[in-house]
Amino acid sequence: MAADSSVSPISRPEMEFQLFDVLNILELAEREQFAEYDRDTVRATLELAETLALDSFLPGYRKSDLNEPVVEDDKVKLIPEIGQAIDAFVEAGFMSAHLPLDEGGMQMPWSLLQSCYSMFQASNIGATIYYFLTVSAANVLREHGTEEQKRLFMAPLLAGRFLATMCLSEPEAGSSLTDLRTKAIPNDDGTYRIVGTKMWISGGDHDLSENIIHLVLARIEGALPGTKGISLFVVPKFRVNEDASVGESNNIARVGLNHKMGYRAATNTVLNFGEDGDCIGYLVGEEHRGLAPMFLMMNEARISVGAGATMLGHAGYLYSLAYAKERKQGRPVDGKDPEASPIPISEHADVRRMLLVQKAYTEGALALCLYAAYLVDEEKTAKSQEDRDTANALLAILTPIVKSWPSEFCLEANKMAIQVLGGYGYTIDYPVEQYYRDNRLNLIHEGTNGIQAIDLVSRKLISRGGAYWQALKAQIVAEIEECSAIEQLAPHAASLTQSLDMADETVTVLQGLSGDPSQQTANASFFQDALGHICVGWMWLRQGRASLRALDGADASNPAEFYRGKLAAMRYFFRYELGRVDHWLHIVRDEDRLLEEVDTACL
Amino acid sequence: MAADSSVSPISRPEMEFQLFDVLNILELAEREQFAEYDRDTVRATLELAETLALDSFLPGYRKSDLNEPVVEDDKVKLIPEIGQAIDAFVEAGFMSAHLPLDEGGMQMPWSLLQSCYSMFQASNIGATIYYFLTVSAANVLREHGTEEQKRLFMAPLLAGRFLATMCLSEPEAGSSLTDLRTKAIPNDDGTYRIVGTKMWISGGDHDLSENIIHLVLARIEGALPGTKGISLFVVPKFRVNEDASVGESNNIARVGLNHKMGYRAATNTVLNFGEDGDCIGYLVGEEHRGLAPMFLMMNEARISVGAGATMLGHAGYLYSLAYAKERKQGRPVDGKDPEASPIPISEHADVRRMLLVQKAYTEGALALCLYAAYLVDEEKTAKSQEDRDTANALLAILTPIVKSWPSEFCLEANKMAIQVLGGYGYTIDYPVEQYYRDNRLNLIHEGTNGIQAIDLVSRKLISRGGAYWQALKAQIVAEIEECSAIEQLAPHAASLTQSLDMADETVTVLQGLSGDPSQQTANASFFQDALGHICVGWMWLRQGRASLRALDGADASNPAEFYRGKLAAMRYFFRYELGRVDHWLHIVRDEDRLLEEVDTACL
Repeated sequence: MAADSSVSPISRPEMEFQLFDVLNILELAEREQFAEYDRDTVRATLELAETLALDSFLPGYRKSDLNEPVVEDDKVKLIPEIGQAIDAFVEAGFMSAHLPLDEGGMQMPWSLLQSCYSMFQASNIGATIYYFLTVSAANVLREHGTEEQKRLFMAPLLAGRFLATMCLSEPEAGSSLTDLRTKAIPNDDGTYRIVGTKMWISGGDHDLSENIIHLVLARIEGALPGTKGISLFVVPKFRVNEDASVGESNNIARVGLNHKMGYRAATNTVLNFGEDGDCIGYLVGEEHRGLAPMFLMMNEARISVGAGATMLGHAGYLYSLAYAKERKQGRPVDGKDPEASPIPISEHADVRRMLLVQKAYTEGALALCLYAAYLVDEEKTAKSQEDRDTANALLAILTPIVKSWPSEFCLEANKMAIQVLGGYGYTIDYPVEQYYRDNRLNLIHEGTNGIQAIDLVSRKLISRGGAYWQALKAQIVAEIEECSAIEQLAPHAASLTQSLDMADETVTVLQGLSGDPSQQTANASFFQDALGHICVGWMWLRQGRASLRALDGADASNPAEFYRGKLAAMRYFFRYELGRVDHWLHIVRDEDRLLEEVDTACL
Repeated sequence: MAADSSVSPISRPEMEFQLFDVLNILELAEREQFAEYDRDTVRATLELAETLALDSFLPGYRKSDLNEPVVEDDKVKLIPEIGQAIDAFVEAGFMSAHLPLDEGGMQMPWSLLQSCYSMFQASNIGATIYYFLTVSAANVLREHGTEEQKRLFMAPLLAGRFLATMCLSEPEAGSSLTDLRTKAIPNDDGTYRIVGTKMWISGGDHDLSENIIHLVLARIEGALPGTKGISLFVVPKFRVNEDASVGESNNIARVGLNHKMGYRAATNTVLNFGEDGDCIGYLVGEEHRGLAPMFLMMNEARISVGAGATMLGHAGYLYSLAYAKERKQGRPVDGKDPEASPIPISEHADVRRMLLVQKAYTEGALALCLYAAYLVDEEKTAKSQEDRDTANALLAILTPIVKSWPSEFCLEANKMAIQVLGGYGYTIDYPVEQYYRDNRLNLIHEGTNGIQAIDLVSRKLISRGGAYWQALKAQIVAEIEECSAIEQLAPHAASLTQSLDMADETVTVLQGLSGDPSQQTANASFFQDALGHICVGWMWLRQGRASLRALDGADASNPAEFYRGKLAAMRYFFRYELGRVDHWLHIVRDEDRLLEEVDTACL
């Protein structure tokens, strides 16, 4: 069967359902700054983004996989489609879409912008890092930069003239910022000379923009050891003149380009700062307080990783679904007449399982990611301080889940998409194998999933006396109460209550282990998966409730099949998936100390 | 951290433990035909195989990934290392090692040969298909071929002059042999003209041998529809003269080379038989009875797929283990002094989890695969008919498990190996990403895992009045009884009893559903995973018992750490994994008919 290039990696009906029916994004239009964002504007924005995704990002997708960035004449060259996609993105105003009108933006709610970004991720995830890091870096500078830094660095970033990176990892310090060695040596004029090596730098070198602006964590000479001695610097590839034009080299050497199993549109580099001459950096914010602004960027990146993982998973679902409906093979299991015509493989139970699990994972994850994006809007614009605080607490506890769960389970979805296509899925003639390879990165970057789990268990569950957990629990309980009154949802609400109660007991156990951090964190990954499943179950209740409402009502934008499909995926999730929570939480609560006791020399 | 090419993908102590301590392979030496295979001979054979693996198969591993087979001058060219590996394999006598001495073989037990094969798979899995298909095809001809077919085809195969393929799939019939359309038109001289297209043909074209011998399923003109009208033919690429020299082209056109995400040393082709001229085929065995001999080959291939998946998983484990012991990062969770030196990441609980899960999966799978290989020996050489029948029954029910479980769970192990290496694991500078890509094929070929599950549930559990299941259960119960008397194993034996009892009840339910095949097979994949976990639990009891015995005794071939590591992995499996069985079996027994009821139009 020939590959079908007409299958889109994006479902706009799905995006509209999530925004209008589940998230109720139109409520935001009641706030002054979002007043423009009525149904028509939201729809038009999604349409614009979809067109941009399919016309500008998608064409380079496979090509960028087959043609990795290469070094020519000491410059990193990418296929032209990547630059064209970024140009079109800037052209359409997306680089500053979330900014106020008076700063040249569109005052777009973050939840809508994240939906647009998601469509670009579905179309060529590697290409999205260039704008994503740039928007994030501009946000850091807008929040913490001096006026001059805004003029010389932020403004060109927002204009798309410059692109940005975030430089945390070093060869000897990947996940451990404590061991960061890059030095910043003060100059008399208030600037610093930066010396050190950074690695895993996405977008660290390329030919897409006039300049590259690195946000770099470094240690000012004489600073304390550990994370309390780390400062943040803006370090341009080329120095920037007073009129914001590009000047001479700032002495950052590209030592290597990493060759990866996927995600190949994104260059990934090792950079040496100040090896062969002075590399000037400008302090952002206060000395020794570099982590907080960097984590502003990092937290946005973590949500973006989850969204990207989700969209790769969903693109695989859409492709394998279209394939399964077309591809005919075999007979019904209860009617094996060899002379009967073969049936579409979507009629075989095991193929349906593989389709439903993909739908349940990826659309559950999408609801979660967009909910997190909505919390960003809430955190900034909710009317009451209380609501803003709640949003902040929910974001804090959900960030590790939003990063890790989609990357684990939507990778699993991509594995299933390949399986639906069989041998075809394993060939490069179909996109599903690329989704799988690209998605594998998402468990690693922006903090591995193991790091997320430790953050969740040893910080997010504990800090503010467990208030984040209480805030999350209250939201889930409220949804369960709504659903308990609805006949078709009540059994699922009851299942979720059971899981939530067990999680709550487990949280109490974990909170009590603060004096025994080893035991507290030993099985953190299992707790993270369990809480992720609970949150996704919650998201399925939200989607189930929205679907029933839509089926009752007169909303004709999606056909009834759309909502019935949602209900089937919800049923799949509760029937086939939620039960795993028991197993994971048992592990966390069991007092076996195997992981601590095992002697590594025995392995 | 630089890649460490000194890490071997093979652990010979592990292979020796499995063969001597777990399988007790020396018992075979009590049988006349295996009398040569005492401890020294087995050891020497493993040593020879390891040397061959590392010196001849391994050097082409990454190179064959980076340099896919290409067509030059209308010939398929492979990197020279593949041909060198196959030549060395033939040279060392492995092509006929399992044959009797008087047929030029070494009378090697299959379980020992499978162990040797496994080491080649660990070193370059794609390269192994050339000899594997050849040995298998020679076995089919030895069993079912005419004297002339043996002389003209089998003998050159065993000499390595010719290599073989198996041709089942067609463009419109991947998993469904019912729809097979390739025709065989009788000639007056007893031969047939073969006309049709076959695809996914591994080793279908290459420059490694003088000739390629295809074993082809086709339908003799006028045959019944369905699988009862299928016959088996031997179809050479070049016709073979009376003196077994190679003659003119037999009109098999290579239509395409598939480009795959991994497993790239193995060419994979679409072949057109008899499009531009007569393509002569020779009937093997009886007319319309082609499936049985082909399934002889297929069942061997299924066990081989499981072993290959296992070895890729284990190679990833060995690599990530060595990496984790070397790579220093972070501090103990209960001692965060930033001035203390970083510790090896193998000391972090979550990394240990990722190491232990790999060990538990891959060494459990290895025990299972070698047990299956031992059953092949038993089936052929056990002294009593009863034992031979038991071995036959066990092989029948275990084949789908041996194919599917390692491919699912050792792929998961490879995912973890990447995660242990973090960003490094995602680059092509380290072997773990290649293991992951290569291993992904193993869920698909030689019958997808979904097909295996249907075979298990609708045939293997049912046929002979459930005798296969009874045979398997009896073996597991016997092991449980042994272990219940041993203090350190008794709790695990008790857990396994619970799981086995639940599986037994589920089998009764499934057997009762023969009138409702749709419900019987709907959740077959979950039953398959559950039974796989039970079997691997059983294998861990066997390994645990062997390890305790060794720790007690004076066996100095492995240090005590080796056995203590085994006990830790066993404990991991029972504590962290076996509990999943409950969840899977609940799904199978639940009477929700979601997969049947869902309307595909809603997805």
